[in-house]
Amino acid sequence: MLKDMKYQEIPPTTLLAPLPCALVTSRDSDGKPNIFTAAWTGIVNTKPPMVSLSVKPSRFSYHIIRESGFFCLHPADKAHVRALDYCGVVSGREHDKFKETGLKEMDIGMPCPALDGLPVCLGCEVRSVTALGSHDLILGEIIKVFVRQDLMDDKGGIHLEKGGLVSYSHGLYQELGAVLGFFGFSVAREETRKRRMRAFSTAGNG
Amino acid sequence: MLKDMKYQEIPPTTLLAPLPCALVTSRDSDGKPNIFTAAWTGIVNTKPPMVSLSVKPSRFSYHIIRESGFFCLHPADKAHVRALDYCGVVSGREHDKFKETGLKEMDIGMPCPALDGLPVCLGCEVRSVTALGSHDLILGEIIKVFVRQDLMDDKGGIHLEKGGLVSYSHGLYQELGAVLGFFGFSVAREETRKRRMRAFSTAGNG
Repeated sequence: MLKDMKYQEIPPTTLLAPLPCALVTSRDSDGKPNIFTAAWTGIVNTKPPMVSLSVKPSRFSYHIIRESGFFCLHPADKAHVRALDYCGVVSGREHDKFKETGLKEMDIGMPCPALDGLPVCLGCEVRSVTALGSHDLILGEIIKVFVRQDLMDDKGGIHLEKGGLVSYSHGLYQELGAVLGFFGFSVAREETRKRRMRAFSTAGNG
Repeated sequence: MLKDMKYQEIPPTTLLAPLPCALVTSRDSDGKPNIFTAAWTGIVNTKPPMVSLSVKPSRFSYHIIRESGFFCLHPADKAHVRALDYCGVVSGREHDKFKETGLKEMDIGMPCPALDGLPVCLGCEVRSVTALGSHDLILGEIIKVFVRQDLMDDKGGIHLEKGGLVSYSHGLYQELGAVLGFFGFSVAREETRKRRMRAFSTAGNG
């Protein structure tokens, strides 16, 4: 069926990649903040802007997010890849992840704390929670967005490509590399394509 | 509030990155296949393995997926970045995207066709459709997975890091770069960490 046996069928598994990997913060009713790491997250709607965040009900942050109704998502950069991994493998039940990673809270006027130093913070309000099996799917509306000043230009343009963002692919954290194109490049006029791509030829990756 | 004004607040927007970018295939009741590009996709559950796929109801593929109940997701690689962009900017109503991109169908025993040559194919069955505003959120169970043989080793290990996968970040397609770590590296013994990381020191990116 598959010509030349170029493909191998494997049992159904979550082999979509690359995925975002984000540090997710919340605060419980006693005021205690927590952090965990999520790759089962993505964009699900543009207007209003909404994210998905899937969490196992056994995770310490799960009930905090359900009860408080808020969380902040921070796509991680290279400088925080160790903290990113650590916050995904230990539990806030036994660990003070702020103390152990050195991550600092930042007040953005929401019930959940933001993390100081990360490239972007998406402040989200829970809209629905749906049990799917191993995970519950939390849909959140993005209600506040903060971008680190060094990733913005004078005209308000956002340059995430300078943020050194990290992706998650089948168990590995990988940095982002060269810019291959922009949305619409395949139908852009040659001059437009060249002019826009020139801006990325010298862009570093964090 | 934000110390040293290190951050700038911007209006709420879909600034999560990097996102996967996938070629999504489906087949209508007349047997005609279509392709479109999605970055509003992600993993939402592990057991059973499930994906989210958000689609504007005005898109040509939307009704085909709803009516047929199946779609295939193909995370794109560098070799297909032009096709990836093209399938996101033109509509199957006016264009034969298979002919125009040169992409070829491959039969995997599902109602939706797979694309020959892409690193991975996730064959999905629709489980629910929920209107969120601009987009409808389609949840699909991953029921078949195919991996290109050159990305698998003799022991059944999958090496997506050799697949040259492409991410989508705020309007830009970026290739994946160096492997920074593996899940659990921050708590792994030093010898384990070094041994596992050695495997990636020479790994190219497609």
